[in-house]
Amino acid sequence: MRIVLDGMGGDNAPDEIVKGAVETSASIDHEICIVGDRERIEPLLDTFEYDAKKICVLHASEVIGSDDSPVKAVRRKKDSSLVKGMEAVRDGEGDIFISAGNSGAIMSGGVFVLGRIRGIDRPAIGSTYPILGQGEVSLLIDTGANAECKPHNLLQFAMMGSIYAQSVLGKERPTVGLVNIGTEPGKGSAMLKETFELLMRSRDGSSGLNFIGNVEARDVPIGICDVIVCDGFVGNVILKMTEGVALSISHLIRRKFSEGVVAKAGAVLLYNKLGELKKAFDYTEYGGAPILGVKGAVVKLHGSATANAVRSGITRAIPFVENRVVDTIERAMGELSEITGDVDKS
Amino acid sequence: MRIVLDGMGGDNAPDEIVKGAVETSASIDHEICIVGDRERIEPLLDTFEYDAKKICVLHASEVIGSDDSPVKAVRRKKDSSLVKGMEAVRDGEGDIFISAGNSGAIMSGGVFVLGRIRGIDRPAIGSTYPILGQGEVSLLIDTGANAECKPHNLLQFAMMGSIYAQSVLGKERPTVGLVNIGTEPGKGSAMLKETFELLMRSRDGSSGLNFIGNVEARDVPIGICDVIVCDGFVGNVILKMTEGVALSISHLIRRKFSEGVVAKAGAVLLYNKLGELKKAFDYTEYGGAPILGVKGAVVKLHGSATANAVRSGITRAIPFVENRVVDTIERAMGELSEITGDVDKS
Repeated sequence: MRIVLDGMGGDNAPDEIVKGAVETSASIDHEICIVGDRERIEPLLDTFEYDAKKICVLHASEVIGSDDSPVKAVRRKKDSSLVKGMEAVRDGEGDIFISAGNSGAIMSGGVFVLGRIRGIDRPAIGSTYPILGQGEVSLLIDTGANAECKPHNLLQFAMMGSIYAQSVLGKERPTVGLVNIGTEPGKGSAMLKETFELLMRSRDGSSGLNFIGNVEARDVPIGICDVIVCDGFVGNVILKMTEGVALSISHLIRRKFSEGVVAKAGAVLLYNKLGELKKAFDYTEYGGAPILGVKGAVVKLHGSATANAVRSGITRAIPFVENRVVDTIERAMGELSEITGDVDKS
Repeated sequence: MRIVLDGMGGDNAPDEIVKGAVETSASIDHEICIVGDRERIEPLLDTFEYDAKKICVLHASEVIGSDDSPVKAVRRKKDSSLVKGMEAVRDGEGDIFISAGNSGAIMSGGVFVLGRIRGIDRPAIGSTYPILGQGEVSLLIDTGANAECKPHNLLQFAMMGSIYAQSVLGKERPTVGLVNIGTEPGKGSAMLKETFELLMRSRDGSSGLNFIGNVEARDVPIGICDVIVCDGFVGNVILKMTEGVALSISHLIRRKFSEGVVAKAGAVLLYNKLGELKKAFDYTEYGGAPILGVKGAVVKLHGSATANAVRSGITRAIPFVENRVVDTIERAMGELSEITGDVDKS
């Protein structure tokens, strides 16, 4: 397998990307191809010892920055690391593309360069969500690509998320829940009620979804189900609230423990543990976010990805390719269209 | 002022409600009228010492339970504590109604018994949101009444929230933010883009809103602004995620600290502090949720409200009445209709 890595995307590129590639390369039997400015990447590579048969560089003269308008950038910067990396996957020269770059541009590149899987009008971003303290993850889908969704979009997210959770996260017959403001059927907007009905119907058949019903946001952190389905707006709020609440509590604990002498003694003991905590709820550490619904394997890393996040992303990319997630989604779409066939997609 | 308190609503009614009323009564110069089953409330009152001129009982033979269908219950249970309490406010026999009962029924009762303020088609629930560790709160509006909203609804939430934040929470010229998936203008769904434009226009004039733009969910826990505007679905997700993440972290800390002997020593120090933490993020402690947009002052307490929550709710109810929040909203609606006049409300 050849893993194509965007050497220029993200806040810490190219340094941490190259470092992550070299460190991971030693422990895997696959080739890593770093796309980007050869004159910046090769000198960095030279500072490490690595197996030259396992790491190559594909030159790209342009970079899509975080402030670039996604659609324009993908259309105009034809020699960017992002576009060239995606083209390598499209042309069969690579098996998966991984980037910590501009999220919108990764999504646009997926749609314009690789194309959508037949029947899917809205590809989605699935984020692995850490179940606190368990070392396990759920998949939250969508987390930002589609602020507005229709019922058949959410059904497709459920299907794609289930396939990813089974093939990559190792969940046997993954449980699927729909984020709603209560667990009873009939809760939420008209759109969610219709989605609930579609998901109920999707349980039929041997390849049916393991839909468990509506779930409340409160139960997401405890891992209420394997695949958490919502529109991109709600998914974004769930991720950002996790980050915000965790950060606030962590600050509060530090402050509480700096009050008073006895508490200070506790603080010394606490500080190391807080580091572990931070890691436990840091979703940037959890292997990146798959872009699902495009004709190629694509993983988005957090913009502030470090070498560790690159390693985590590459590690999870391997089953993404080996277990043929993209092909499985393409096949499943056929069966799904029987369920959604009579649904208005306008 | 006469405060009308639903003696039968909530998981801990009537015991904790009566206890809270008696405890609070001693420190305020207002009358508290407890509505509910006289045969249950009076014996409870008799277990306390209290000033009989400051606490009275208004008999109601029925109770609306948490499982009752809100609209049906309000229409059929005419002798329920909820309906009779609201009627007392409508008829000028009471100044504010406070209940820990069925949220949907409180909202329905507000609409059917008290009626909507002219021009407001969607009343909202505003929840006070604790800014962690600061002892301060923001107002999050809406938090569950309206899963789907139009731009003019959100504009009205912003206006009503501002008035409440100024009159009751003591915020001088409260800052208002719109929850979105990024802070730049132009983010989010078509509905949110249009809301953003409306809110920008609402800044004009001497009584204009202090709109600061889009805010991200991540910044809600640090108190990014005084009034956080969103639809009821998103508001519900924000509250529930706060609860869920805080609970998970608290469990995780307890577990981390029970690993190893040194850590156990820290745990002893930590447990007391965890209690303070729990309180810091417990929004049930923060004075209840005003129902805004109906022709009367109504406060909803958390279903699991204890005597403390009752006290907190009553304490905040006083400025709600004294500072004439309902009248101020009615007047402000006139000015607001000049902004929204050309907006399609269909």
